[in-house]
Amino acid sequence: MLTIALAKGALLKDSVRCFAAAGIDFSALLDKGNRQLMVPSPCGRARALLVRNGDVPVYVSYGQAQLGVVGYDVLQEHQLPVAQLLDLGFGGCRMSVAVKASSPYRRAADLPAHCRIASKFTRCAERFFDGLDLPVELIHLTGSVELGPITGMSEAIVDLVATGRTLAENGLVAIEDLFHSTARLVGNPLALRLDQGDMQQLVKELAAAAQPIEVA
Amino acid sequence: MLTIALAKGALLKDSVRCFAAAGIDFSALLDKGNRQLMVPSPCGRARALLVRNGDVPVYVSYGQAQLGVVGYDVLQEHQLPVAQLLDLGFGGCRMSVAVKASSPYRRAADLPAHCRIASKFTRCAERFFDGLDLPVELIHLTGSVELGPITGMSEAIVDLVATGRTLAENGLVAIEDLFHSTARLVGNPLALRLDQGDMQQLVKELAAAAQPIEVA
Repeated sequence: MLTIALAKGALLKDSVRCFAAAGIDFSALLDKGNRQLMVPSPCGRARALLVRNGDVPVYVSYGQAQLGVVGYDVLQEHQLPVAQLLDLGFGGCRMSVAVKASSPYRRAADLPAHCRIASKFTRCAERFFDGLDLPVELIHLTGSVELGPITGMSEAIVDLVATGRTLAENGLVAIEDLFHSTARLVGNPLALRLDQGDMQQLVKELAAAAQPIEVA
Repeated sequence: MLTIALAKGALLKDSVRCFAAAGIDFSALLDKGNRQLMVPSPCGRARALLVRNGDVPVYVSYGQAQLGVVGYDVLQEHQLPVAQLLDLGFGGCRMSVAVKASSPYRRAADLPAHCRIASKFTRCAERFFDGLDLPVELIHLTGSVELGPITGMSEAIVDLVATGRTLAENGLVAIEDLFHSTARLVGNPLALRLDQGDMQQLVKELAAAAQPIEVA
């Protein structure tokens, strides 16, 4: 039986829809009363492992799950050894640099050298500012990153932006994008190599059902 | 006006009670409809900054909050430069090593060398196993750490245990404690040095009201 790591939260509903289209029913995960973290599909072909977004590549890279669905942002931040198989298309958002709307900065390169940047994604931010050759001080936060500029702790933030509502509510504005993120189907490299056809078949079904874009 | 960083979640109710006893009313934070992250007390002496548990020492160490309330576990994990002022006594729990109840391990030293340990607190775990001179492979997870042994990814976990209910529900048992944790009042070292009496006064009132144990 295949084990598939699915992320709790924003991606779950579309992940379940995606697997349903490939004939695997994980709708029990959407039941609000559900407290189980391992849920088999009624057809017996697969079971879901319900974990935090950031933990999906961990379970897949250690082989506890053969497949997983996770945001490209998480893959960029954690850089774990998993194979990217499909761009599933849903969960679209941007990783952006944002500043106070009242600030004079209109591009990331306008930010002063050695300024402070608050983020949950400090590795993504580090690579981006390294690429600009702009030295910055990164402050790792685990939530409510918009408080960085509001409290004056940081000049800017690097964070995921979907609708932009949270930024606007906090008087912030996105000035530059690091990358666009969508949900990805990832696989354990060794499991893919040892696959007797089950995984390949499911990947094909998901590709056909969800009409996603193949990752080059 | 003093800014006080308070942790969302389990410690919030007792934190509010603690400040109420010292004459500062942050009860608006407990209102379920509250979406504000900065809430001034009606008396005008202080304002609360509502942040994630792990972010409290960040805001205090950068001076965006002069005082903060946070679990000793977070202070042990992040080791940021904040002054520990008071043990507030509430939020008691243990940082423990836990294994499958069916496993043969009854002390941490029984675990095999190079076994895998899953934890949200990998720095605490690293120091502990270094102290035992037992080499282990640490796996950082962000939630549902009990899935580590259940899926076979890790032999043991290091996690916070309050009632032990989550462990028992997942067939796990705590075999050794790293330390006991309670909520602590922390302060920004520079703010404490420059204090004109406001902070000192509030710390004294909190000490008298909550009858906590002074940290040596």
